[in-house]
Amino acid sequence: MARGNRDFARMPNDTGRPLPSVPARQQLLKRHNLSLVLRQIAASRRPSRAQLAARTGLTKATVSTLVDALMDAQLVVESDPERGLIGRPGSPLSLNPQGPAGLGVEINVDYVSCCVVDLTGAVRCRRTIVGDNRLLRPEVVLRRAVRAASLIWRQAEVAGLTVVGLGVGVPGLVDFDGVLHRAPNLLEWQGIPLAEVVADMLGRPLQSVYCDNEANLAALGERWFGRRDNLQDFVLVSGEIGVGAGIVIGGELFRGVRGLGGELGHVTVDPMGPACSCGGRGCLERVAGQEALLEAAGLPAEAGTAVGGPVASVAELVRRALTGEPTTLLALEKAGTALGIALSAFLNVLDLPTVVLGGFYAELAPWLIGPVTGELHDRVVNHPWSPIEVIVSSLGAEASVRGAAGITIRRIIDDPAASFPEVLALTRT
Amino acid sequence: MARGNRDFARMPNDTGRPLPSVPARQQLLKRHNLSLVLRQIAASRRPSRAQLAARTGLTKATVSTLVDALMDAQLVVESDPERGLIGRPGSPLSLNPQGPAGLGVEINVDYVSCCVVDLTGAVRCRRTIVGDNRLLRPEVVLRRAVRAASLIWRQAEVAGLTVVGLGVGVPGLVDFDGVLHRAPNLLEWQGIPLAEVVADMLGRPLQSVYCDNEANLAALGERWFGRRDNLQDFVLVSGEIGVGAGIVIGGELFRGVRGLGGELGHVTVDPMGPACSCGGRGCLERVAGQEALLEAAGLPAEAGTAVGGPVASVAELVRRALTGEPTTLLALEKAGTALGIALSAFLNVLDLPTVVLGGFYAELAPWLIGPVTGELHDRVVNHPWSPIEVIVSSLGAEASVRGAAGITIRRIIDDPAASFPEVLALTRT
Repeated sequence: MARGNRDFARMPNDTGRPLPSVPARQQLLKRHNLSLVLRQIAASRRPSRAQLAARTGLTKATVSTLVDALMDAQLVVESDPERGLIGRPGSPLSLNPQGPAGLGVEINVDYVSCCVVDLTGAVRCRRTIVGDNRLLRPEVVLRRAVRAASLIWRQAEVAGLTVVGLGVGVPGLVDFDGVLHRAPNLLEWQGIPLAEVVADMLGRPLQSVYCDNEANLAALGERWFGRRDNLQDFVLVSGEIGVGAGIVIGGELFRGVRGLGGELGHVTVDPMGPACSCGGRGCLERVAGQEALLEAAGLPAEAGTAVGGPVASVAELVRRALTGEPTTLLALEKAGTALGIALSAFLNVLDLPTVVLGGFYAELAPWLIGPVTGELHDRVVNHPWSPIEVIVSSLGAEASVRGAAGITIRRIIDDPAASFPEVLALTRT
Repeated sequence: MARGNRDFARMPNDTGRPLPSVPARQQLLKRHNLSLVLRQIAASRRPSRAQLAARTGLTKATVSTLVDALMDAQLVVESDPERGLIGRPGSPLSLNPQGPAGLGVEINVDYVSCCVVDLTGAVRCRRTIVGDNRLLRPEVVLRRAVRAASLIWRQAEVAGLTVVGLGVGVPGLVDFDGVLHRAPNLLEWQGIPLAEVVADMLGRPLQSVYCDNEANLAALGERWFGRRDNLQDFVLVSGEIGVGAGIVIGGELFRGVRGLGGELGHVTVDPMGPACSCGGRGCLERVAGQEALLEAAGLPAEAGTAVGGPVASVAELVRRALTGEPTTLLALEKAGTALGIALSAFLNVLDLPTVVLGGFYAELAPWLIGPVTGELHDRVVNHPWSPIEVIVSSLGAEASVRGAAGITIRRIIDDPAASFPEVLALTRT
């Protein structure tokens, strides 16, 4: 297994090299069209072959050949023809829910979570273990994560799925090779090719492994599985113990030029503010991170997670806010203001249309959305011409592990021939 | 003439549509190869046809056909063969310095500047008019700019050049259509398709017009014409009366998702700081803009420009800093610190390797580079793994007008068939 990440296979495009030779172009064309058809099946509601031909611009004969290959490779299934209103009914096609699947693992500061999603994006198994991981050595946390992941992998197998890829999310700086360099809130985790380590500990063959920052994966989770359709350009703010940002531009994750971007939690909101674990001063995290917020509201910080429901302390915060308790409301107002200031700094520069409040901020959105929006209005100079919408994540703290599992699914759908080279042979006509 | 910008023609790439038909693909291939050869001529030191064939992977016969077409279109010239050390010498090829040219116009707060660059990127004519444009109506400033531009256009013609495109830079929010929405320091300039207006006032035919924020054009100027080769990923901070940022990622300008990004001057550096003309509070511009800095140093603000040498007040600032005058040094330290705080906000998110100090900051770099670098070290959490270099613009305040003129040149070199469709016909073999 290669060290760290194997990146998504991509179609070659204009790279300043001469175009490939004729046989290479034909192979490329086939690969391109397989991807085109599979993406269309994924995006449509049970299309027929004739509908696919109409939507892709390919001939019906070509579509049929490609669909047959995708069915032979277990990626697509055909249902019984539905009675159409007009003409001969076509057989509806859909992604195979019993085909390949993706395993996602999220190691966060106060929980470990994992899930398996099938090709349709449905979560088939999940498991979360709550506990403060700052108190444990990395090996202990990893063993715990791997035990949970093994368990749901076996469950998925029993359900007829084949796990082919692994995605791992972590609240830290992960480079393009999938190496975790630093997690400001998990100080011992340094220089670890995390997805590879987890894959080795799982000890079973995988086609692909991928590791990324949890906020990046949460943004992808929201893009792929969130309630809002066609979310193309947005920043997801992931509130956990730390605060991260995942940026999606043109439907693609933007990880920063060298992969270590998205560190919203360490944007300065008060140059003379309190010192931060990162070495800076007045970082957003020190005002709007989960612990800072609980402390400001006079609540004890408590290990836990919002995955599958908010952690006890956050739930208590919500309860107090609902009763109008002044200290709680003030703390939320302050956190929302800080969040708005930090966001305005890079929205002035990036001009993004949408902010998604994610992680535990989703639970607190009723109190945060006002001050966040207010600061953005006041501080983003392009706002009158480029309005910014602040919305709430529909997946909350689960977005990240869903994104981690979804990586494998998107990889297959975007380029099935890269994951299953046999489909190219199967399309020989 | 189309309203606003005509964007650069681009090669179609993987857009989720079926690949084009065979004749369309052949045309595309020819267009692609013309661009490939012309870009290689632009990037090399007088290559021969054989060298071009080796570097592009095309056959010598294909290269010869393409080069002949580019010469017929006046884009490339051939010099007498140089005596090689080995073998028969090839004729060196280069961009035609007497071919098409680009006109650049920069309308800034305290000056108007214009220049013509030839296909090789050399500035052939230039003209700058200093004066505070805030005191004048837009029509007056535009007439002044057009008079200067007409003059150098005629000079360029006398020198044998053909001006085919216009680029206009302005310190404000310019959308993808080239419409200036707002210039915080030039309040009357609103909702103007500036390049089109200038082109109409010039009253002569142009192939392409383009308008953009002055910091964006300065970043492109630095990328194309600056001393540092191969500057691929950087932010240029343009210090003028206002403060802007031009971001280049992967060699391409990143204007923000909706084109209105780069507003570094309005990033909050002190949430409770002084009110700003943008409606915000504690913006960078209020601490590190030219007037704010002069005021802090106890110097009178003075209309002028650093184009072709620093403005009197900035020159005086430099003089005082050189003598170690404490108020001046303190003001510079404060400005550099604020600049570092504002930059750290989005470098935490974008993970860019290089900051270029441009505009009048280039003159002041000896005093700014220390505090800027210090704040970045302290506040950018990924810094230990992703080092950030702070360098000085080699073009200073001239970068923007050079970039504005260069737009036309790059457009031709990147896709000659888009600007000169006749080259496609000329390559018929």
